[in-house]
Amino acid sequence: MDILKSLLKKSDSKILLIVLDGIGDLPLKNGKTPLESAKTPNLDFLAKKSALGLHIPVDYGITPGSGPGHLGIFGYDPLKINIGRGVLEALGVGIELKETDVAIRGNFATVKYENGIPIVVDRRAGRIPTEENKRLINYLSSHISKIEDAQVILQSGREHRFVVVFRFPYKVSSEVETINDTDPQTIWKPPLKPEGKGEIAEKVSRIAETFSQKVAELLKNEPKANYALLRGFSVRPDLETFEEKFGLKACCIATYPMYKGLASLVGMKIINFEGETIKDEIETLKREWQNFDFFFLHIKKTDSAGEDGNFELKTKIIEEFDRFLPEILALNPSVLCITGDHSTPCILKAHSWHSVPVLIYSPYVLGGTSERFTEREALKGELGIFYAYKLMPLLLAHAGKLKKYGA
Amino acid sequence: MDILKSLLKKSDSKILLIVLDGIGDLPLKNGKTPLESAKTPNLDFLAKKSALGLHIPVDYGITPGSGPGHLGIFGYDPLKINIGRGVLEALGVGIELKETDVAIRGNFATVKYENGIPIVVDRRAGRIPTEENKRLINYLSSHISKIEDAQVILQSGREHRFVVVFRFPYKVSSEVETINDTDPQTIWKPPLKPEGKGEIAEKVSRIAETFSQKVAELLKNEPKANYALLRGFSVRPDLETFEEKFGLKACCIATYPMYKGLASLVGMKIINFEGETIKDEIETLKREWQNFDFFFLHIKKTDSAGEDGNFELKTKIIEEFDRFLPEILALNPSVLCITGDHSTPCILKAHSWHSVPVLIYSPYVLGGTSERFTEREALKGELGIFYAYKLMPLLLAHAGKLKKYGA
Repeated sequence: MDILKSLLKKSDSKILLIVLDGIGDLPLKNGKTPLESAKTPNLDFLAKKSALGLHIPVDYGITPGSGPGHLGIFGYDPLKINIGRGVLEALGVGIELKETDVAIRGNFATVKYENGIPIVVDRRAGRIPTEENKRLINYLSSHISKIEDAQVILQSGREHRFVVVFRFPYKVSSEVETINDTDPQTIWKPPLKPEGKGEIAEKVSRIAETFSQKVAELLKNEPKANYALLRGFSVRPDLETFEEKFGLKACCIATYPMYKGLASLVGMKIINFEGETIKDEIETLKREWQNFDFFFLHIKKTDSAGEDGNFELKTKIIEEFDRFLPEILALNPSVLCITGDHSTPCILKAHSWHSVPVLIYSPYVLGGTSERFTEREALKGELGIFYAYKLMPLLLAHAGKLKKYGA
Repeated sequence: MDILKSLLKKSDSKILLIVLDGIGDLPLKNGKTPLESAKTPNLDFLAKKSALGLHIPVDYGITPGSGPGHLGIFGYDPLKINIGRGVLEALGVGIELKETDVAIRGNFATVKYENGIPIVVDRRAGRIPTEENKRLINYLSSHISKIEDAQVILQSGREHRFVVVFRFPYKVSSEVETINDTDPQTIWKPPLKPEGKGEIAEKVSRIAETFSQKVAELLKNEPKANYALLRGFSVRPDLETFEEKFGLKACCIATYPMYKGLASLVGMKIINFEGETIKDEIETLKREWQNFDFFFLHIKKTDSAGEDGNFELKTKIIEEFDRFLPEILALNPSVLCITGDHSTPCILKAHSWHSVPVLIYSPYVLGGTSERFTEREALKGELGIFYAYKLMPLLLAHAGKLKKYGA
């Protein structure tokens, strides 16, 4: 949306975007959703004088992962941007990716050898405990630090999962995304040889092959995790930054690596802080309030509760958030937006395609349409149902950061 | 949306799409629409716990014919797909078109000859009775069966209308759609010579010219229908099938040739059955329930009543449909969708551009927004107002047939 960029204007206004991860839900108890069940006097008060609506995270019927979900509310059309699997996994374990990096998802696996050829017998190495995984990654890290001109960076994930990053002394193109997974996707087959199209893809393939051989050699006496399967070769997408796209000096206040990673992809400054409660996040917000003009504050626990199907917990977290609202409003944001990146209905225990309530609080709203911040009350609101990537222009407008278009 | 295709996953769920043709309407009696006037206890009950909304068949202000109307709800953007007039007319009279066919609309017309040149004096041959038409088509069929390498297939329509198909021994390109109509669109002029661009178009033009001359010769003594004007030269559009696009094994239960034809264009299996009542269709649905995972059930009479401006009849048909709802629900469809292909308001006695109520019944809806399945109650629903071609992704999602997009 180049028109938007041509309309940007500076102002002192501050925008606060609070993302309650996976907030949208479906009725369970007494026909109510968690937002409807929660006692939220402060949100209720706010909803009555705010602009409400719902956003479609990606498109009708499409259930977003965290990547596309956040890209949408950050103002990037998630159907037009591909974040590779390796990159997302690397962000999830907290690796700060550079444009010189190739990020790859690794799985520890079990192979047996027939005539010297490895045959996959368990693609997940019996889901070894995370502590096992950490021991193995430490051991591998101390023995593999460089292959050709690539620095090798290893990081444990959960159970059998890890991330490997090849860091080169030069920028790497997305050509490496043509490299196939080495995971044969089925047992009783040998791992596949990595192969890609183009000079750098061939080089990365060769390095990946060497890496696999080194791992196999180093882990040959392990009972379960004696091999590494590689998937999702990818590079950091080349996104316009928040500053370039919206003229905003933006920061991210989040507790989970994945969301910090996504924010850093669009150039937000990641604020480091102690603790991981909502209170810790709000304290951090207060401390940084003078330093930025856009704040992305991410609350993870609503999503986790939804993923666990824990209706009561999700309701409780909403109530906890509600209690902090007066402190947040005391900062006097020019525009306060509360929404989610997607729905995580407790009855599905997973992300879903359902549209997500949005609340925009600013002096420049109609308001008076909705009694509460809930899925069904949001349907009555002035914003209607709109694509998530249209949210940012709305926030900029309400913050007085957009000029008139045309005369 | 190629992304959708990449997200398809198999599941045992079954989707039932019921199209009440032309269901949308405008208030007439007591300010109520037929849906609002009808007594529909079963639909009312369903509406309360379903997702409601309205679809825009093609685009704002655009009144669709049956072709675009159905393409939309079948998930194809009707603005991007052209179904030629000849093809639609052929589908309407029940000709099963192949990719080797050129389909053309014919009008019997009256000409008089001046210096041997035909001059059109009535473009519709006084709208001869359909029985007359059938007699003439039988006669022509017995005398014209082949021209060059094209088999000639003739089929009567109503009054002065008929369809002619040239069936070749090879696939015919859409190049033939450059051929002009021979109808001069006004009287006191000679018919136009058919001409098109490209080798096959020239050949088809030549065959069409020969056909016209043969018809003129064979009918020269007819008092009214002594000539044939040809319009809408077209070939079957090359559409992705429902199976390719959505991974669905789909069937069509309909009574009118046009709708069976449209369903066959997207590769649905057409179920043949005796009778033409709603009851006959429901019985067929029950019989076929185990054989498919998508069912398109088309009910025509709501549209016919609208076209006749018969408010009472339209209301009665809605009530008749309502009585079958318990039987339909007893099949336990994973997703039941009830909608129309367009509106046919009684006061217009014609199709219209108005958005059309949609109901999606599944365990994964918010529900509780609307009291009834009516135009105005649908406005309160969670689906909002959306383009018809977004309906299929929504149905797939509710049926658990779509994976998450991105991680």
